[in-house]
Amino acid sequence: MYIEKINGPEDLKKLTMDECMVLAGEIRELILKRTSDIGGHVASNLGIVEIAIALHYVFDSPKDKMVFDVSHQSYAHKILTGRKEGFADSDKYSEISGYTNPNESAHDHFFVGHTSTSVSLACGLAKARDLAGGKENVIAVIGDGSLSGGEAFEGLDFAGGELKSNFIVIVNDNEMSIAENHGGIYGSLKALKDGNGRAENNYFKALGFDYRFVADGNDVAAVTEALKEVKDIDHPVVVHISTKKGKGYSFAEEDEEAWHWRKPYNLETGELKSDFNGERYDRVVRDHILERIKTDDRIVAMLAAVPDSLSFTPDMRKQAGKQFVDVGIAEEHAIAMAAGIARNGGKPVFATLSTFFQRTYDQMSQELCINKCAATLLVINASVYAVNDISHIGIFDIPLISGMPNMIYLAPTNKQEYLAMLDWSIDQDEYPVAIRAPRNGVFYAEGEVECEYGINPEYRIQKQGEKVAVLALGDFYQMGEEVVEKLKADKGIEATLVNPRYITGLDRNTLDELAKTHEVIITLEDGVLDGGFGQRVAGYLGRYKGVGVLNFGLKTEFLDRYNLKAVMESNHLTPELICEDIYKIL
Amino acid sequence: MYIEKINGPEDLKKLTMDECMVLAGEIRELILKRTSDIGGHVASNLGIVEIAIALHYVFDSPKDKMVFDVSHQSYAHKILTGRKEGFADSDKYSEISGYTNPNESAHDHFFVGHTSTSVSLACGLAKARDLAGGKENVIAVIGDGSLSGGEAFEGLDFAGGELKSNFIVIVNDNEMSIAENHGGIYGSLKALKDGNGRAENNYFKALGFDYRFVADGNDVAAVTEALKEVKDIDHPVVVHISTKKGKGYSFAEEDEEAWHWRKPYNLETGELKSDFNGERYDRVVRDHILERIKTDDRIVAMLAAVPDSLSFTPDMRKQAGKQFVDVGIAEEHAIAMAAGIARNGGKPVFATLSTFFQRTYDQMSQELCINKCAATLLVINASVYAVNDISHIGIFDIPLISGMPNMIYLAPTNKQEYLAMLDWSIDQDEYPVAIRAPRNGVFYAEGEVECEYGINPEYRIQKQGEKVAVLALGDFYQMGEEVVEKLKADKGIEATLVNPRYITGLDRNTLDELAKTHEVIITLEDGVLDGGFGQRVAGYLGRYKGVGVLNFGLKTEFLDRYNLKAVMESNHLTPELICEDIYKIL
Repeated sequence: MYIEKINGPEDLKKLTMDECMVLAGEIRELILKRTSDIGGHVASNLGIVEIAIALHYVFDSPKDKMVFDVSHQSYAHKILTGRKEGFADSDKYSEISGYTNPNESAHDHFFVGHTSTSVSLACGLAKARDLAGGKENVIAVIGDGSLSGGEAFEGLDFAGGELKSNFIVIVNDNEMSIAENHGGIYGSLKALKDGNGRAENNYFKALGFDYRFVADGNDVAAVTEALKEVKDIDHPVVVHISTKKGKGYSFAEEDEEAWHWRKPYNLETGELKSDFNGERYDRVVRDHILERIKTDDRIVAMLAAVPDSLSFTPDMRKQAGKQFVDVGIAEEHAIAMAAGIARNGGKPVFATLSTFFQRTYDQMSQELCINKCAATLLVINASVYAVNDISHIGIFDIPLISGMPNMIYLAPTNKQEYLAMLDWSIDQDEYPVAIRAPRNGVFYAEGEVECEYGINPEYRIQKQGEKVAVLALGDFYQMGEEVVEKLKADKGIEATLVNPRYITGLDRNTLDELAKTHEVIITLEDGVLDGGFGQRVAGYLGRYKGVGVLNFGLKTEFLDRYNLKAVMESNHLTPELICEDIYKIL
Repeated sequence: MYIEKINGPEDLKKLTMDECMVLAGEIRELILKRTSDIGGHVASNLGIVEIAIALHYVFDSPKDKMVFDVSHQSYAHKILTGRKEGFADSDKYSEISGYTNPNESAHDHFFVGHTSTSVSLACGLAKARDLAGGKENVIAVIGDGSLSGGEAFEGLDFAGGELKSNFIVIVNDNEMSIAENHGGIYGSLKALKDGNGRAENNYFKALGFDYRFVADGNDVAAVTEALKEVKDIDHPVVVHISTKKGKGYSFAEEDEEAWHWRKPYNLETGELKSDFNGERYDRVVRDHILERIKTDDRIVAMLAAVPDSLSFTPDMRKQAGKQFVDVGIAEEHAIAMAAGIARNGGKPVFATLSTFFQRTYDQMSQELCINKCAATLLVINASVYAVNDISHIGIFDIPLISGMPNMIYLAPTNKQEYLAMLDWSIDQDEYPVAIRAPRNGVFYAEGEVECEYGINPEYRIQKQGEKVAVLALGDFYQMGEEVVEKLKADKGIEATLVNPRYITGLDRNTLDELAKTHEVIITLEDGVLDGGFGQRVAGYLGRYKGVGVLNFGLKTEFLDRYNLKAVMESNHLTPELICEDIYKIL
């Protein structure tokens, strides 16, 4: 086993090319061991092993600096830079994250988890190097899928035109985004592959880059040779390398989309160790959209390269036909295009993760909200209960989206309410509407739900009580129910329970009534407190001296791979801790 | 005068090409009349006159749909579509805005004011058309400068790869952004011009577009001929048209940057009718940065195509040399590059308008804040006192920026404080720092100002009093002083005056003290209330029953070309109205 001797890049440099090819197989085994045990990005990491070996063979990291785009494909890089135990030893899995992480190693320069930023980050490293008179190589490693993001273009355009010094971009072309690629650029990349690096209208050359091509990126010697040629180059160059996504593991090679990110699986059969086939909001909503598409050809389901966010499998996409659009990793384009569809009579429904809406604030504000284009946005994984990697946390969207004039941001608390809000939004023509998909399990309404919503919020009083009023928003509604029960059990307080339903605006009538008849009003929201729903309520109620207001939600901090229970407790987000805080000011 | 007969595109179609050329001159006179009287975008509008004529000559607007990028160059389009009085009649100037505006005309499909969105908006119009079985032409008109924005790439990439129907992109190439262009793409555009439309590595073809070239875009006949060829085309095509920015007005032709946007000027001499040469924060800060650059080669002044935001003239840019970077219209790239510079030991200072920080939320959060890269951001025009076009209002940045963990967002109230914050930020290595540039005139500190800031906010009590505490943030500090004076004059109340200095975080110690010793605490901020500073204070103080809290700031609404006095009054932002509100709850 060569891997046993590799504790850093310096050990790698002692191997022959043939030995490196054996090592590649050993690295693949580690990747498969970890991902089959705890899940992770499988196919992209299997595909890039030889590139990672060649990079560390040729360059001198960390002096030479490598920036991995998204960095979900950095497993081999981690294994080669002293972190193999995070893959080989199940006790140490948790010490190593799934993305580059400067806290783990000097070979990682940034926390990265969102797409298309590597070239720009590397431009900054190169600029500071040039001002300081340094000579190190700066290398950005970016997948073909990430090239559809506008920022990747901005970075390439800047580098190609403005940098007059060493700058190396490795394009790892496996002909896939998470799902299939979308965009005209992919025709050009294919032409370059078909022409063994020669084709008219080379995208990279059009942006001012020098260009090299490597036909077999899963051959360490071929990649090494190409990298040796560009090492210490004095101008920007793209090295376009063709690789096979999922390389070396037949299940992944055959279904790259299913193996892009995979939950724990059986190594022999490829089957998931456990899967949840029951009711889930993403599937409920997807099925509802597909049903509506059948009878309304104005509806367009839109995604930005994350079909899994709505469980939109290839079959489902085919079923939706022309009424399904994947724009690639291009959220800005998605929102502006949705505005255009709405303006011309269509009914766009765009879904992506909470954390990715951050990539299109301006288009939401300018294109959708100023123009009052009636698009529907589904905000997925917007919850402390969802993804817990630092770059993907979904707790920041309430301040982001709810401050936009003309936007209606709704927070359903159960399945019927979610679908009613979605139907209402699709059927109206006046306002952009965002709906915050719940993540705390599928609940059912007790009694009727409202079918009409609008720009003027009306909170729903689920239970009229006294002394204490609990405004429990969206995902935290069920926690609000528990608080009300506990107030009754502890102190015999018959508290009022409110389902605000609206994140945007304020139902001033209801708040005025509550303030007149209660001593304490509390708010609960599944997101950061600062700039959120509760503080808006507190700002309004400040005029009522004599009424206490407590906001419950999350502190403004970046959480990483957190323990849910600990986070909930440290933020006083349990019925016990909430009641304690209430009793302090009652 | 042909212009007298033109009340809509149908009248234009009756003219000969020669008559259209005469008409172009008449349109230029109207553009010069209006802009010399009230200011506006001069050079870009002069350059595109013939394209606008040809577009309305060949196509059938509003059935055929034209989307103008940024839409600052839509004056000729407006003149040709029934709005010439907004240019010819000084009484009617105010009826017509400087951007496309659906409220003015059916020929305008969107409010647009930010860059690089036209292709995406047009993609949406085309998609909805195709689903509805329509046959109209969809045309995006975009300048070469706007091509540096990532969203323009995203739109072109999507259209070139995914649209299989009529789609026309007019690239108006005048070889300028607001200032000179930056980026590798401009080498390609120049090669195409030099080759009369032929060159290797055509950027548009690389993205899947068909391509046509027009060498003289200021010849109506030449443009008309090209547009007739592409009318009703069944696939995406770029018509690349070379024009002269500032065409027909020698002053503008000779200094395109100074004439991109111009305040009222003397038509004969080109001189500004009035100019303010006194002290202004943008100049103060620019001079300070230039001074520091002289002795510290780590500092990099960064802008994104709006050098005017810091009065960074060509001379100043030359003076800063390699320590000045204009990234083009590419805010996402700018922020990620700043993160890279900081990570490699540099000291980036990036300035742009409040409204343009909206274009890079994700990079601020992910690249700067998660990574704790010590970049300095100067947030310009962040004020109700600044630009008042709906697309450029600067009142939304407080919720945007202040909710990011690890970010320190500071609000100086005078010149010394502003420069002290800037120096401190440049000299520290721990945190990303944003500084909200004041806009209500240059004020001077009374006494010393603090030279050290940090992640834990400390509010400054300027005057210790009782009963009422006034927390007056940044630009509204001087209004806070007036409120305190008025409380004394009206009721003899010696109120407490606080300069919070920090927008992020909370100084809990000071707030606890204030709550114990005051009956009413008010906050003043020069931005929207929702999600802002005051509501965070109210959220914290909610636990103190018996203390009234009032937040003063702006309602969540899109204001357009507003009357400042009326807006201030409707938001209770005068000392009189503020005191009245205080008296109601004292």
